[in-house]
Amino acid sequence: MNIVVQGLGEMGASLAVCLNAQPAHHVIGVDQDPNTLTLALAQGIVAETASQLAPVATQADVIILATPVTGIIQALQTLAALPLKSDVIITDTGSTKRDIMAVAATQLAHVAFIGGHAMAGTHLSGVTAANPQLYQQALYFLIPNQKGQAALSTLQTLLAPLQANFKTIDTTTHDHLMAMISDVPHIAAFALMNAAVKQLGDVADFGQYVAGGFKDTTRIAASDPKLWTDVLMSNQAAVLASTQQLMAELTAFNQALAAQDTDQLLRLIQSAQKARQHL
Amino acid sequence: MNIVVQGLGEMGASLAVCLNAQPAHHVIGVDQDPNTLTLALAQGIVAETASQLAPVATQADVIILATPVTGIIQALQTLAALPLKSDVIITDTGSTKRDIMAVAATQLAHVAFIGGHAMAGTHLSGVTAANPQLYQQALYFLIPNQKGQAALSTLQTLLAPLQANFKTIDTTTHDHLMAMISDVPHIAAFALMNAAVKQLGDVADFGQYVAGGFKDTTRIAASDPKLWTDVLMSNQAAVLASTQQLMAELTAFNQALAAQDTDQLLRLIQSAQKARQHL
Repeated sequence: MNIVVQGLGEMGASLAVCLNAQPAHHVIGVDQDPNTLTLALAQGIVAETASQLAPVATQADVIILATPVTGIIQALQTLAALPLKSDVIITDTGSTKRDIMAVAATQLAHVAFIGGHAMAGTHLSGVTAANPQLYQQALYFLIPNQKGQAALSTLQTLLAPLQANFKTIDTTTHDHLMAMISDVPHIAAFALMNAAVKQLGDVADFGQYVAGGFKDTTRIAASDPKLWTDVLMSNQAAVLASTQQLMAELTAFNQALAAQDTDQLLRLIQSAQKARQHL
Repeated sequence: MNIVVQGLGEMGASLAVCLNAQPAHHVIGVDQDPNTLTLALAQGIVAETASQLAPVATQADVIILATPVTGIIQALQTLAALPLKSDVIITDTGSTKRDIMAVAATQLAHVAFIGGHAMAGTHLSGVTAANPQLYQQALYFLIPNQKGQAALSTLQTLLAPLQANFKTIDTTTHDHLMAMISDVPHIAAFALMNAAVKQLGDVADFGQYVAGGFKDTTRIAASDPKLWTDVLMSNQAAVLASTQQLMAELTAFNQALAAQDTDQLLRLIQSAQKARQHL
């Protein structure tokens, strides 16, 4: 198949390198960064490169949009105006699905669109983070538009080399779930890092004292700022609701501590420990 | 030397197993749990056991108190009333030092007391978590009372087999530092776990969806509830101040998100990312 992957960051490049290893496929990488394209070609991540989506999209059997969410929406609008192959399958890797599925339902109703989001990815970014094992055993959500329903099995067969666990889900369930298990943990990690710097000064001063607990809790604070600004903005309402829930739980700890209510503090920690041990 | 270790949890048992491996020492383990004592003796973590501190303390050259903070304070009060060896060294592993050093300064001024706190330990607990490598390369804070100053080098020589990095510090600096880099990260992890359960229901339902980021951020939520109730209560004022700082940073994220202020959101994430990358 003729496969176009737009956006050769960690997610897109890892998809591309897996698909490009299959002799049946010809993978064309699209990226706005010329150095990324040069590197992707040199390392065999893609078989061909292009700086613009439109010229290569019209001959594609499958188009994979792997930029941040705002870029995916722009690309969908571009694709909606192009004479695509009638049986083309378009998919994406965006981590919030509401706005993407809205565009897919309205402007791309004539095309098989299957929103995708894998619970994979690290704090690394860019084409150098390409990793053919990235998706192995990872949960990979699929959300088809009406025409995409019939293309689900074709896409899953195509993506089989990733060895991911595919699961269909609806948009609202997906976005609310992501707010709580991905977006708000990132905000918590960012906020904890910023709070530590405000209170203790430069990391060069206090970094020598931190142990594994602080490092684990803040690991994802090293994530890409532009990407995460985009993710959080695209899921604004659900993220705000989940952040409120986190603040309510923090307030419960503060109140128990301030009141020296040892029993209540113990109960709060016990419920958290029990849940975490069952994770 | 005749060494008494009270409290054979992860910290105490790991200290004991290291010291008991030295032929020059005779390590006596004290614990309120008979099964812990049986296991510690069978596994060579200690050479002798006792169910009470007082009967073995009077012959000790070194006494290591490795229970939660409230237990350490009770033990110090017990020791203050006993006819200890004149050159005994008492140390502890309590993670908050204010109350412990206050008792050491008043009721144990006649004894060399050196408060101890290692930046080591996992979410595991109990004697089965004994690990002779636990303290290797870990920062190990020491806070002597007045008479303890002269015993610092003796204690560091004794604890050399741990291969920890010893550093003297003052009580207030220690406790404020711990509030921000250890206590509040635990509260954040507990609160995030509780918020997820409140919003998504049982872990059995949503656990299948979580990826590495959520798991890392909440790893320390699996920590021992009784121990952490004790830690947080013993450092109440500093913890409340640091939690307020965290809530202020979370509020900054909420405000930027609610106002759709992309630039401010990006700045907040960039400062966190920069700090975390330098950790």
